[in-house]
Amino acid sequence: MPLQCRNQPGVNIEAMQQDLQHTLSLLARTPATLNALLRELPDAWTGQNEGENTWSAYDVVGHLIHGERTDWMPRARRILEFGETRAFEPFDRLGQNRESQGKTLPQLLDEFTRLRARSLEELRSLNLRPEDMERRGLHPSLGTVTLAELLATWAAHDLTHLHQISRIMAHQYRQAVGPWSKFLGVMHCAGHSS
Amino acid sequence: MPLQCRNQPGVNIEAMQQDLQHTLSLLARTPATLNALLRELPDAWTGQNEGENTWSAYDVVGHLIHGERTDWMPRARRILEFGETRAFEPFDRLGQNRESQGKTLPQLLDEFTRLRARSLEELRSLNLRPEDMERRGLHPSLGTVTLAELLATWAAHDLTHLHQISRIMAHQYRQAVGPWSKFLGVMHCAGHSS
Repeated sequence: MPLQCRNQPGVNIEAMQQDLQHTLSLLARTPATLNALLRELPDAWTGQNEGENTWSAYDVVGHLIHGERTDWMPRARRILEFGETRAFEPFDRLGQNRESQGKTLPQLLDEFTRLRARSLEELRSLNLRPEDMERRGLHPSLGTVTLAELLATWAAHDLTHLHQISRIMAHQYRQAVGPWSKFLGVMHCAGHSS
Repeated sequence: MPLQCRNQPGVNIEAMQQDLQHTLSLLARTPATLNALLRELPDAWTGQNEGENTWSAYDVVGHLIHGERTDWMPRARRILEFGETRAFEPFDRLGQNRESQGKTLPQLLDEFTRLRARSLEELRSLNLRPEDMERRGLHPSLGTVTLAELLATWAAHDLTHLHQISRIMAHQYRQAVGPWSKFLGVMHCAGHSS
């Protein structure tokens, strides 16, 4: 398809609803994507961050592992078991320090691959029906959320960290690219998390 | 290594210089990264864009193919053959329309994989020495640039488009994530290219 076919006005006005198969298809690919991108890449790319109190690609993989253990499926189970009567545990955004302690990046990638496969196996085994997607839970700061929103956020969270990793690594060449910097959007992205 | 080891103040004040082995290691991984991320993903992820006159992931792969054919190695050769006496050809940022015509995403991924391998084979065969990196060429709008800057930009260009693809795909779930949007930096990135 040429570019124009997808650029017709209005094509993209309505955003996609959370779709379990679409969510699963994306979540299932992230370990292989990170393996292809990061495994055996020199530490000059994967071990460097964007300055004090920022993360390296290595740190991000630890964060993804921590999310796999404590965030996504535990929260989905809580919605299904307790609805809004019991809030999620707050997520520890520095939990990767414990997850990563003493481990190499390939070890972390292997661990993330294993944990993600286990999470998706569990998610599939729930045999969720369309009506389950509207079931509600209680987020400690956001308030009422739905299972559909949790699952969409899981997929988008993978993408936000792929976005971050590509930015962290590009940052290492911010001077090396010389005058081309102005053409490279990633060099001007400061991150947007609140 | 725990997070703190890499977050010492000053660790990252000096950005990495272009290093041919580091550049090659990154460039060599991009086809496998895009294959892992995109191949067989539903068109709902790969065929949608961010609105009128923006690109889908499919379009980005076509753009990378066009760059492989007309931008990176042709410009490196021009620097080595003509120095600053003959400017680069301007790069056609809509060249992917021709490259993509009638092709499926898996076909484009195969083509990019093949072209990238050929480019890197040619780059390695040049046996560039450290002193070659300072050789100069003439960019049609940026003026004088060095071979080192061109090679660093090639790697950063891969990363800027990985950054873009993750943003385009996250955009499809911008409504589905509900209140979590505020925690997902990628949802608030509007791109930064000039």
